[in-house]
Amino acid sequence: MPAVWVSEVGPRDGLQSIATVMPTAAKQRWLAALARAGVPEIEVASFVPARLMPQMADAAEVVRAACALPALHVAALAPNLQGARAAMAAGAHKLTLPVSVSEAHSLANVRKTHAEMVEVVRGVVALRDAEFAGVRIEAGLSTAFGCTLAGAVSDAQTLRMAQTMADCGVDEIGLSDTTGYANPAQVGRLFRALRREVGERAGGAHFHNTRGQGLANVVAALEAGVTTFDASQGGLGGCPHAPGATGNIVTEDLVFLLEAMGLDTGIDLDALLQARAILAEALPGEPLYGHLPDAGLPKGFAYAREAA
Amino acid sequence: MPAVWVSEVGPRDGLQSIATVMPTAAKQRWLAALARAGVPEIEVASFVPARLMPQMADAAEVVRAACALPALHVAALAPNLQGARAAMAAGAHKLTLPVSVSEAHSLANVRKTHAEMVEVVRGVVALRDAEFAGVRIEAGLSTAFGCTLAGAVSDAQTLRMAQTMADCGVDEIGLSDTTGYANPAQVGRLFRALRREVGERAGGAHFHNTRGQGLANVVAALEAGVTTFDASQGGLGGCPHAPGATGNIVTEDLVFLLEAMGLDTGIDLDALLQARAILAEALPGEPLYGHLPDAGLPKGFAYAREAA
Repeated sequence: MPAVWVSEVGPRDGLQSIATVMPTAAKQRWLAALARAGVPEIEVASFVPARLMPQMADAAEVVRAACALPALHVAALAPNLQGARAAMAAGAHKLTLPVSVSEAHSLANVRKTHAEMVEVVRGVVALRDAEFAGVRIEAGLSTAFGCTLAGAVSDAQTLRMAQTMADCGVDEIGLSDTTGYANPAQVGRLFRALRREVGERAGGAHFHNTRGQGLANVVAALEAGVTTFDASQGGLGGCPHAPGATGNIVTEDLVFLLEAMGLDTGIDLDALLQARAILAEALPGEPLYGHLPDAGLPKGFAYAREAA
Repeated sequence: MPAVWVSEVGPRDGLQSIATVMPTAAKQRWLAALARAGVPEIEVASFVPARLMPQMADAAEVVRAACALPALHVAALAPNLQGARAAMAAGAHKLTLPVSVSEAHSLANVRKTHAEMVEVVRGVVALRDAEFAGVRIEAGLSTAFGCTLAGAVSDAQTLRMAQTMADCGVDEIGLSDTTGYANPAQVGRLFRALRREVGERAGGAHFHNTRGQGLANVVAALEAGVTTFDASQGGLGGCPHAPGATGNIVTEDLVFLLEAMGLDTGIDLDALLQARAILAEALPGEPLYGHLPDAGLPKGFAYAREAA
């Protein structure tokens, strides 16, 4: 196991946010390249109706292909029972359920009240228990740090929803800064409180870089004991219901941060840049972000696994 | 006094790194707007020969104009005794002397060996003591975290140079990540060691965002007790002798980070964006960086001084 678990969410959070529909074969080439680079987990698709999100129409096929890649943990997102069933039937190892702390965001994003979404989560856990034992279920708490619709979100609101999710029987509860509102003081405070509240079910961090604070928030999360981070290659991504929210933190820059700090990710940066080239070729004209790809590795750079 | 002291270095580090020469009147408009925004300190110029750096030919005039702005601490950089004299004669309140920890960088940047540069620093301190009492002298340790020419720089090398500077009688010793090599683990470790080594002479942090790690390093520095940060509006800047080094951390994003964390900077972000508009108008076509200017403040955002 690497010291820090990087979960690549570009194929889901990234591709759902751009207009271009990446062909299935291109997705498969990109996923294979990411897996070759040593990325341990990829959220490969979102199981939503194709009429709402044509970028994800091939979700089941992509999950099946990803499951054939060696040593890769395959995650998928599903906002409802039907999507969850399809994702698990396709073979996903992990399921992320997007649960908004802000009810306004919940209504905009999944068209459900809190009460309705809690019922979805209960139903998905029951389905997993009955038919898909072994699939890991994560509640990803959207707008955990603030909401473009509702404004400030209190720690108490986020922790209350985390407790509700624990009561529903999910395996892990992650915190998402969907809107780029989080700051390091808040991140450290909230992840520490999350662990106090739900113990070992405390999950990973999903940060957007909307206000340039993504990696600063990672540092605070690391200090609070977080060891799983979502990131998106090239910073692809955003949220259609969080206006102005730009992409996730950039995988390339995150991996450099962690390795430079002496935290093994199991990822090879040269191979990660090869995956980026495949992505760039598949999405001509789409802006890709990140500093490391331009600047390159420092002279004398050593991976954590070499330095140890 | 604000909780954290932000020193704007764009007029020096930024403008010296781009080909365009900003007219003196435009510099004055920009400086005035920055001061109006509440920026407490600006490094306004570098005192180097105009034939080497025509962007800085008006250094003395700019210092004099800046000194007329109310409540502004005016800093200038000088690499030698002649420049230091001119800067202090013009009225600079603070003088930053660039002292490379890497001797290869010293030779490339100021064409001096370590021994020669130490003599410069001694001479400047003596001149200040004799003729310009009250001027604060900072040794800014370039390449403190690594060097594009020499590669890795050890903590011991940086701390040895810091001690040498303390022995020379400088008032403060800052650490500069000239090359964008620093990581948060190293930053925390080195600033803590700096304080152990030179006590109250431990100075601020000067980070470049070359590999996107700038604000992550700020978080680590804050935790190590650093309360002074250099930054450049729009991320202007770099180092002509550190290939690939892009600009400083972006003032706008830094101020947002600090205020969101509850750390008062005394700076108003709307007014800071007005200063950015003046900069953009004066440098047409020059790329300006930063996320906050695009994303805007979060809904319900409160400054530290309001929240307190």
